[in-house]
Amino acid sequence: MFLTRTEYDRGVNTFSPEGRLFQVEYAIEAIKLGSTAIGLKTKDGVVLAVEKRITSPLLEPSSVEKIMEIDEHIGCAMSGLIADARTLVEHARVETQNHRFSYGEPMTVESTTQALCDLALRFGEGDEESMSRPFGVSLLIAGHDENGPSLYYTDPSGTFWQCNAKAIGSGSEGADSSLQEQYNKDLTLQEAETIALSILKQVMEEKVTPNNVDIARVAPTFHLYTPSEVEAVITRL
Amino acid sequence: MFLTRTEYDRGVNTFSPEGRLFQVEYAIEAIKLGSTAIGLKTKDGVVLAVEKRITSPLLEPSSVEKIMEIDEHIGCAMSGLIADARTLVEHARVETQNHRFSYGEPMTVESTTQALCDLALRFGEGDEESMSRPFGVSLLIAGHDENGPSLYYTDPSGTFWQCNAKAIGSGSEGADSSLQEQYNKDLTLQEAETIALSILKQVMEEKVTPNNVDIARVAPTFHLYTPSEVEAVITRL
Amino acid sequence: MFLTRTEYDRGVNTFSPEGRLFQVEYAIEAIKLGSTAIGLKTKDGVVLAVEKRITSPLLEPSSVEKIMEIDEHIGCAMSGLIADARTLVEHARVETQNHRFSYGEPMTVESTTQALCDLALRFGEGDEESMSRPFGVSLLIAGHDENGPSLYYTDPSGTFWQCNAKAIGSGSEGADSSLQEQYNKDLTLQEAETIALSILKQVMEEKVTPNNVDIARVAPTFHLYTPSEVEAVITRL
Amino acid sequence: MFLTRTEYDRGVNTFSPEGRLFQVEYAIEAIKLGSTAIGLKTKDGVVLAVEKRITSPLLEPSSVEKIMEIDEHIGCAMSGLIADARTLVEHARVETQNHRFSYGEPMTVESTTQALCDLALRFGEGDEESMSRPFGVSLLIAGHDENGPSLYYTDPSGTFWQCNAKAIGSGSEGADSSLQEQYNKDLTLQEAETIALSILKQVMEEKVTPNNVDIARVAPTFHLYTPSEVEAVITRL
Amino acid sequence: MFLTRTEYDRGVNTFSPEGRLFQVEYAIEAIKLGSTAIGLKTKDGVVLAVEKRITSPLLEPSSVEKIMEIDEHIGCAMSGLIADARTLVEHARVETQNHRFSYGEPMTVESTTQALCDLALRFGEGDEESMSRPFGVSLLIAGHDENGPSLYYTDPSGTFWQCNAKAIGSGSEGADSSLQEQYNKDLTLQEAETIALSILKQVMEEKVTPNNVDIARVAPTFHLYTPSEVEAVITRL
Amino acid sequence: MFLTRTEYDRGVNTFSPEGRLFQVEYAIEAIKLGSTAIGLKTKDGVVLAVEKRITSPLLEPSSVEKIMEIDEHIGCAMSGLIADARTLVEHARVETQNHRFSYGEPMTVESTTQALCDLALRFGEGDEESMSRPFGVSLLIAGHDENGPSLYYTDPSGTFWQCNAKAIGSGSEGADSSLQEQYNKDLTLQEAETIALSILKQVMEEKVTPNNVDIARVAPTFHLYTPSEVEAVITRL
Amino acid sequence: MFLTRTEYDRGVNTFSPEGRLFQVEYAIEAIKLGSTAIGLKTKDGVVLAVEKRITSPLLEPSSVEKIMEIDEHIGCAMSGLIADARTLVEHARVETQNHRFSYGEPMTVESTTQALCDLALRFGEGDEESMSRPFGVSLLIAGHDENGPSLYYTDPSGTFWQCNAKAIGSGSEGADSSLQEQYNKDLTLQEAETIALSILKQVMEEKVTPNNVDIARVAPTFHLYTPSEVEAVITRL
Repeated sequence: MFLTRTEYDRGVNTFSPEGRLFQVEYAIEAIKLGSTAIGLKTKDGVVLAVEKRITSPLLEPSSVEKIMEIDEHIGCAMSGLIADARTLVEHARVETQNHRFSYGEPMTVESTTQALCDLALRFGEGDEESMSRPFGVSLLIAGHDENGPSLYYTDPSGTFWQCNAKAIGSGSEGADSSLQEQYNKDLTLQEAETIALSILKQVMEEKVTPNNVDIARVAPTFHLYTPSEVEAVITRL
Repeated sequence: MFLTRTEYDRGVNTFSPEGRLFQVEYAIEAIKLGSTAIGLKTKDGVVLAVEKRITSPLLEPSSVEKIMEIDEHIGCAMSGLIADARTLVEHARVETQNHRFSYGEPMTVESTTQALCDLALRFGEGDEESMSRPFGVSLLIAGHDENGPSLYYTDPSGTFWQCNAKAIGSGSEGADSSLQEQYNKDLTLQEAETIALSILKQVMEEKVTPNNVDIARVAPTFHLYTPSEVEAVITRL
Repeated sequence: MFLTRTEYDRGVNTFSPEGRLFQVEYAIEAIKLGSTAIGLKTKDGVVLAVEKRITSPLLEPSSVEKIMEIDEHIGCAMSGLIADARTLVEHARVETQNHRFSYGEPMTVESTTQALCDLALRFGEGDEESMSRPFGVSLLIAGHDENGPSLYYTDPSGTFWQCNAKAIGSGSEGADSSLQEQYNKDLTLQEAETIALSILKQVMEEKVTPNNVDIARVAPTFHLYTPSEVEAVITRL
Repeated sequence: MFLTRTEYDRGVNTFSPEGRLFQVEYAIEAIKLGSTAIGLKTKDGVVLAVEKRITSPLLEPSSVEKIMEIDEHIGCAMSGLIADARTLVEHARVETQNHRFSYGEPMTVESTTQALCDLALRFGEGDEESMSRPFGVSLLIAGHDENGPSLYYTDPSGTFWQCNAKAIGSGSEGADSSLQEQYNKDLTLQEAETIALSILKQVMEEKVTPNNVDIARVAPTFHLYTPSEVEAVITRL
Repeated sequence: MFLTRTEYDRGVNTFSPEGRLFQVEYAIEAIKLGSTAIGLKTKDGVVLAVEKRITSPLLEPSSVEKIMEIDEHIGCAMSGLIADARTLVEHARVETQNHRFSYGEPMTVESTTQALCDLALRFGEGDEESMSRPFGVSLLIAGHDENGPSLYYTDPSGTFWQCNAKAIGSGSEGADSSLQEQYNKDLTLQEAETIALSILKQVMEEKVTPNNVDIARVAPTFHLYTPSEVEAVITRL
Repeated sequence: MFLTRTEYDRGVNTFSPEGRLFQVEYAIEAIKLGSTAIGLKTKDGVVLAVEKRITSPLLEPSSVEKIMEIDEHIGCAMSGLIADARTLVEHARVETQNHRFSYGEPMTVESTTQALCDLALRFGEGDEESMSRPFGVSLLIAGHDENGPSLYYTDPSGTFWQCNAKAIGSGSEGADSSLQEQYNKDLTLQEAETIALSILKQVMEEKVTPNNVDIARVAPTFHLYTPSEVEAVITRL
Repeated sequence: MFLTRTEYDRGVNTFSPEGRLFQVEYAIEAIKLGSTAIGLKTKDGVVLAVEKRITSPLLEPSSVEKIMEIDEHIGCAMSGLIADARTLVEHARVETQNHRFSYGEPMTVESTTQALCDLALRFGEGDEESMSRPFGVSLLIAGHDENGPSLYYTDPSGTFWQCNAKAIGSGSEGADSSLQEQYNKDLTLQEAETIALSILKQVMEEKVTPNNVDIARVAPTFHLYTPSEVEAVITRL
């Protein structure tokens, strides 16, 4: 049966007899190997927290970017292939800047997410901008616009959902369960920070330090926490 | 025999010795995995109802869009790959807007459906707009034009039919039987709402709530029901 | 031997060692699965009659179009993949309209048929208009021009023949025999209608009704019969 | 060994280890399945005669065109895939018309044949005009220009030869032997007509009638015989 | 081992593990099946002689062109696929004419040969002018320019050599040996004619007649011998 | 299991069922065969040191360039396929020059690294600038900009990290361990030179000479050490 | 294991699991079949010497060009596929001429070599200028510019090295050993000529004559030795 599957992959973007798209499913496997990222939406803003795998003490921790700003009101956390994520983020940055230039106002979070997923969906099409394979990355997109704070989750198939809280990456299963237990809509930003980091702590094999996690908020503008701000959250745990 | 089939798929869009197009048939399988959607045409307008699978309580129900507006007089319900459906709907929105701009009048429902199916038919052709595989989605297109209300059903082969009532998705077989028993041409819109939701209730595993179903009507303009309007229909069951 | 055939298909449009084009032969198989269509030429005009498979009572019979107008003096009946037929008919409509615009006179039936077959022949060529596989459809093209009435039959290889009478689709074998017995050149249009429908009746599994057959004539302009006109022919049987 | 051959076809236009082009050889097989055509050159002009396979009495014999005019001084008979022949003839018609327009004189028969073969040679090249496979047709090209009457024979490889007499198609082997016995350079046109038809009669399974053979001459202009002219030749046999 | 070779051909123009290009080697096989051609350079000019295979007495011998003029000071003899040779010769004719037009003087024989080989080398590149496979033909190019008479030999790999005498085609092995024995630099044109034809006679299965051989010289302009001039050479043997 | 992997490579840039990209992993293997390169960042600048494999005493050592200047404030050391590295470096040189021209200031080290990785990521996309396979090279990019000195490490997947010290190539495993032991942030440039060369000495099979190693620094401008400067460092060991 | 290798070649330019590029390695095999060429750099200029395989006494030795001029200050000797070498040399000639035209000065030897290797590296990329396979040729590029004389060696991977002396082709292994023994930097041009020819003599199966070797020098301009100049060197042996 396994051999049969391999037959279907060759076209990159073709259905199997059961109606499945294997390259997309395999890309999702790539994400299961990635580091864990968590997002929580509160009424005051959105919190993102990610695990950073620092494979060598000689690596500069700040250069392992797993949370990136898209526009001043939108940021994202990622899990999977970092180089793929950079391409998507760069595409989104151009789109949001173009929108500001053309309409004199920020792009909504949903439109930004849609633009990003349009690119992801068209893998294997031979377009100039698209990839020849699915993007091997999931994103948690945090933003704040005229509709208030919002959190989106995207997967390699180009589909997206709006969430109150969501975890992605290798520890996502356990983290999602914890989020369902601990999340409620009345959390403060500070409570969300604490929950995010305490859950991340559970799924990480190492001790949590300002070097191996990143935290950011969009409330209402994107802010990546400094090491001392991260340290403060760690202390609260 | 199964191995032989796999031989034919590679060209994506080639006939098997029995005159079949397997990629289209496999795409139809993708739809059988999708959530159920139901459409009913009455003399006063068309009703659409869909099941929404909310896999996590942290997911924002309103972001799981399975009913979308195409133009103010046309909407559609979908089953299958949501990202594919978004591409088709976006294409149809551009077509209908262009039509309004060029001719100063709304596009007919049939022309809109035809435009959408033209795109679906040309998969594997290497065009700029077309996909390299069939679109893995079926649509129920509800509309109202100079010919009154109408309901169309499209499948991944790019074929469409006009119907009085139709169900698509994983529960479509049972739902279609129920529709044949309960449908008649003199239904009021309110009766259609009740029938649609009661049939959806039968095929859904969970209890029906305003969170896990969506209802819309085109009568004569598109309107997606608010949670309280959905609640009102549920109460009538 | 069967395996060997599959080897040759991959190029879509290549000869087998016996000098055969398998993709065309497989497309012809697709037509053998299609509904039956019949055409008869009389001195006063041409009659087309088709079986419509109404798979559900909720399907709108008039939306199952198996006879379509190409220009006011040309129409066609089809058997096979309906979406493919639509593409061919749309192409022919553009050609005939362009001809009227450029030359101020209607395109002849033969030129229209030729234009349609040119498109069918070039499958697998990567042209903008052509398909990557043969068109899986046969057409009976009825027309009336300066040479009087004429009936053409096209197949997926892009070949066409002029006929006095012809049947296509799943019941074509039996229907062709009956046509040879009953056809003569002096038939009136009304006699042709009766013969067409009585032969269709033999090959259909269901009772003939105005819902499951369509009749049209080109004499000298295209006219699709109304349900009551069809009813009248049924009554005559 | 047969399997090995199939390996080489895939590239459509590649050499086998023995220096052979199999797709061309397979196309030549397609012609061996075709109806028989015969050409004879006399000092007064060239005669072409073809067998027409009328598979049904309801088929219009005159629509089975196996002899076609290219320009007023050139015509051709064909054996093999008729739709392919139409493409070649159409190409030659455009070339001869362009030549008349540009130079104010008819194109020579050799140049016309060369133009036709240039197109045939370039199969599999991805050009706009060329096919993705060899043209599955042989032609006998009869013409009359400043060098007097001439007869050319083309095959699917894009090669051509000038002949005094030649037969192609399923009966070509026997017909070529008969031609060698009966041909001499001093034949009159009428004698050539009689020889062509008497040889055709030998290779045809059915009785020869004006319905199932076509005759044409280029002497010095192309003329397709009317049924009564064909009848007259039959009577002379 | 043979199977392994077939693996390498698919890319048309890729190296085998031993550093070989099989498609080129197979094309060279195609030439070994071709008719024999011979060239000799003398101080007064170059002589070309070819065997013509007249497969039927009804074939016009003069239409079997195996020696062709490129420009008034250059001609060539060929062995292999004639249609391929025509393409190369046509390309060379355009190049030499362009050169005359641009520079007002004839193109040198070496530049002409180089231009021809550039086209041959680029098979499988997808260029507009190049073929998707190697040209299956060898040429003996005879010319006369400011450097006096010269004779070039080209093969399907796009390589060329200058020779004093050379034979190509099915009889080339024996003919080359005879040439080495009989050739010397002081031959007169007439002696070269006699040697060429006497060697051709040895390798041909049939009796030599003006119908089945062609002779040409470039001394200093191209001249294809008339049947009586050929007869005169035959008489001298 | 190995055979299964080979199935996935064919598309060059497709996921395996485990979510892996094998061509990238194989390219990384190519680097493991490469010569060793080492980089160390100090507060005063960055030091690069590479092993040069001089396979023959007749080879000009200075022509084996494994450290190259990108801009006057950026240089890089490489391991893997040198021709691939040259393409990347050339691309980066153009980018940095364009930046200077457009903005009148040097490009930052991170932007330069990103531009280089963007090209690396897009292998297999059919772009004009990209390769049809991953670039088989890793780079250590040393630079100095407004943020002070920095050292980046890139791999064939198009990913990059900022490091304090890093080794690449066949001896990288042992060299990385030694770097972790000996590195601290307060090293002087001279200490860094000594550490780099002493570690290189351990992983090289031959005696270290000015001929078989290269050293460079960016402090704050790029400088490739002369043989005597290299000799001086060797003497200090 | 061998079969596995064949799997990887198909993409022409893809890595094997061990990080190897087999098409490049196979092209290098092609060169091992080629004739031997030798280059030596002296302080006064560079000497090139090649073996010419004259397969027939009727071949014109001067037409077997294995040493070619690129510009008046650069020449090259080649081993491998001569037609491929011609393409590279032609490309380099255009580049050097363009450089002279644009900058009014000769191109440096290294830039010329780089330009040549850029073309070689991009095989399989589908560019207009590049080949679909690696160039099956190695070059010894001799030149003289503002930096004095230099000798470069290129291989099919697009890599190049600067050398004092180097041999390529089937006899390169033995020749390289002899070069290492006999080379020193103070050789005069005449001594270099003698060494080159004496080593060539050892690896050639035939007696050395002015017909089967070519010698050239760049000192400081390119000069191909006349037969009598070659004779003089032979006499000195």
